[in-house]
Amino acid sequence: MTNYYSQENHGPFELIDIGSLELEEGASIPDCKLAVAIYGTLNADKSNAILVPTWYSGTSKIMEQAYIGEGRALDPAKYCIIVVNQIGNGLSTSPSNSTGSLAGPGFPQVRISDDVRAQHRLLTEHFGLESLALVVGGSMGAQQTYEWAVRYPDFVKRAAPMAGTARNSAHDFLYAEALIEAITTDPAYQSGLYGSSHQVAAGLKRHAKLWTVMGWSTEFFRTSRHKALGFDSMPAFVDNFMTGYFAEMDPNNLLSMAWKWQRGDVSRNTGGDLAAALGRIKAKTYVMPISHDMFFTCDDCLAEQELIPNSEFRPLHSIDGHLGLFGTDAEMLKQVDAHLLELLSTPAP
Amino acid sequence: MTNYYSQENHGPFELIDIGSLELEEGASIPDCKLAVAIYGTLNADKSNAILVPTWYSGTSKIMEQAYIGEGRALDPAKYCIIVVNQIGNGLSTSPSNSTGSLAGPGFPQVRISDDVRAQHRLLTEHFGLESLALVVGGSMGAQQTYEWAVRYPDFVKRAAPMAGTARNSAHDFLYAEALIEAITTDPAYQSGLYGSSHQVAAGLKRHAKLWTVMGWSTEFFRTSRHKALGFDSMPAFVDNFMTGYFAEMDPNNLLSMAWKWQRGDVSRNTGGDLAAALGRIKAKTYVMPISHDMFFTCDDCLAEQELIPNSEFRPLHSIDGHLGLFGTDAEMLKQVDAHLLELLSTPAP
Repeated sequence: MTNYYSQENHGPFELIDIGSLELEEGASIPDCKLAVAIYGTLNADKSNAILVPTWYSGTSKIMEQAYIGEGRALDPAKYCIIVVNQIGNGLSTSPSNSTGSLAGPGFPQVRISDDVRAQHRLLTEHFGLESLALVVGGSMGAQQTYEWAVRYPDFVKRAAPMAGTARNSAHDFLYAEALIEAITTDPAYQSGLYGSSHQVAAGLKRHAKLWTVMGWSTEFFRTSRHKALGFDSMPAFVDNFMTGYFAEMDPNNLLSMAWKWQRGDVSRNTGGDLAAALGRIKAKTYVMPISHDMFFTCDDCLAEQELIPNSEFRPLHSIDGHLGLFGTDAEMLKQVDAHLLELLSTPAP
Repeated sequence: MTNYYSQENHGPFELIDIGSLELEEGASIPDCKLAVAIYGTLNADKSNAILVPTWYSGTSKIMEQAYIGEGRALDPAKYCIIVVNQIGNGLSTSPSNSTGSLAGPGFPQVRISDDVRAQHRLLTEHFGLESLALVVGGSMGAQQTYEWAVRYPDFVKRAAPMAGTARNSAHDFLYAEALIEAITTDPAYQSGLYGSSHQVAAGLKRHAKLWTVMGWSTEFFRTSRHKALGFDSMPAFVDNFMTGYFAEMDPNNLLSMAWKWQRGDVSRNTGGDLAAALGRIKAKTYVMPISHDMFFTCDDCLAEQELIPNSEFRPLHSIDGHLGLFGTDAEMLKQVDAHLLELLSTPAP
């Protein structure tokens, strides 16, 4: 459909077949393939593995570029950092790379918990792991991080959910619904049977505008951070940066992830009881929202952190808001590293 | 087109013809009619007049219901409170009530400054006023309040812009653009030549959803304020309250106001120099943003307040955010009244 999701753009990554994945919603993905990028080497006792799940629209590449490197907290010289692309993101099994009845709009509904169970199978069966030194992810990566810590409390020694919640809020659900409708109301979307992403350009552009409104912050634009990033006006920022970012992505992939994002909820493990779910967590957990995040707000994250036994509230300060996750604010990345270094230095529970 | 904008729904109001209004963008409105609602009586020296302009989608009715009454700051027993409906809102001359070439999508582009010049003509020629004890308005009413204070500095003795800015931000412009596109991308909109508002229901509903995402606040939903207001779920709130609120309104009216909102900017009076424009203000000014407003933020308003000579920063606290303007938060209304009472008690400059 498009070569956006290529090794050239997003690699190197390895495709690992974990077999048939039964999904919570009832369907299954036969020969489910997870795209995995690995940085560093597993030590003898397999105690230095770090799992990094990915966010909406993102792949392992942005995690490498923004968070992984020598001298960073996620240092390949010390850790074996395993970045697993979420199902539906275009690298792992997705609408865009499936065939037959699973292709495009026929792709089944996948939940955060499906990703986490798939990753658990990958880590235990393929890598032979029995624990993770750390799970760290942002946004939908934070949703997966929470699901990991709740579902496999003995496996996860430390957890650092950034800019995301354990249970998605009604407000956030509605924002994602607006994103979905920006795409699906484009007549060219044709119920998912479009010929190429470019045909859905108008819908993808409206989707990009909504990300611009909510993804950064009012302060970001008031202080002309978009100009500091190299765009001389708001239209230039919208057209060249935001629209350009999404333009090559597959709409059905985005919609698959958005559906999943809307329904992230660890309390599904405990009959809807969020306190009971978060109370299960054994990992030492740093809850790391971003100060100016307009949809995964600090207050929402704080309310959850207070329900996690061995946790600390470690907000990141950045007027870049949610999309500070991209790594646009070097000062915020320093804060991330400082918190993660401290977290990694705490003894495993 | 629709009887939503009736005396029964929004009256009593008087339609006052101010003659031909030449617009900044070049066109003109012949026989421009302003819908005016008056509460209280003008005193002998005409020193007790208060002007209240209206916001996007609102009319004089909501201003009466939420802000005017005996024992309130805006007390008809003390003041002659003149609420002037903005051009394009459906009561004053608007796309929905114009005929011929001005009807519907043929309606000319109107700016905040056009409204303020029209109101100035109304107040001077029809009411014989030479000053206003106070101009107070919210959102687009704040935009008009600022324009009044900058354009007619000797006329306006006191000003209280609530939840709005003197110069619209790039972020706010883009949010309004998303609102506009929610309507115009509905195929039933037909470039403004739809048969009735109901035909554009899908676009109006998407527009209502974006208002739900940005109009209140994440905290509003986290603390279930929507349930406290009588709606048992987010979908019920979106469908019955927000969509219901906008459903009967005329899309071309909304689009006319949105275009105006996007371009509110007092610095057009001073060649783009905002400090020079705000420096002109002689009115004692209370700048009153709402703490949790997601698009007319406190920081944006504070930056402007600091440029106004005789002003004070008087933020209102409410998790209801921007739409707290509706009067949903009784505690916020008390704050409004306290600030306005204090402002009205200060000597005229």
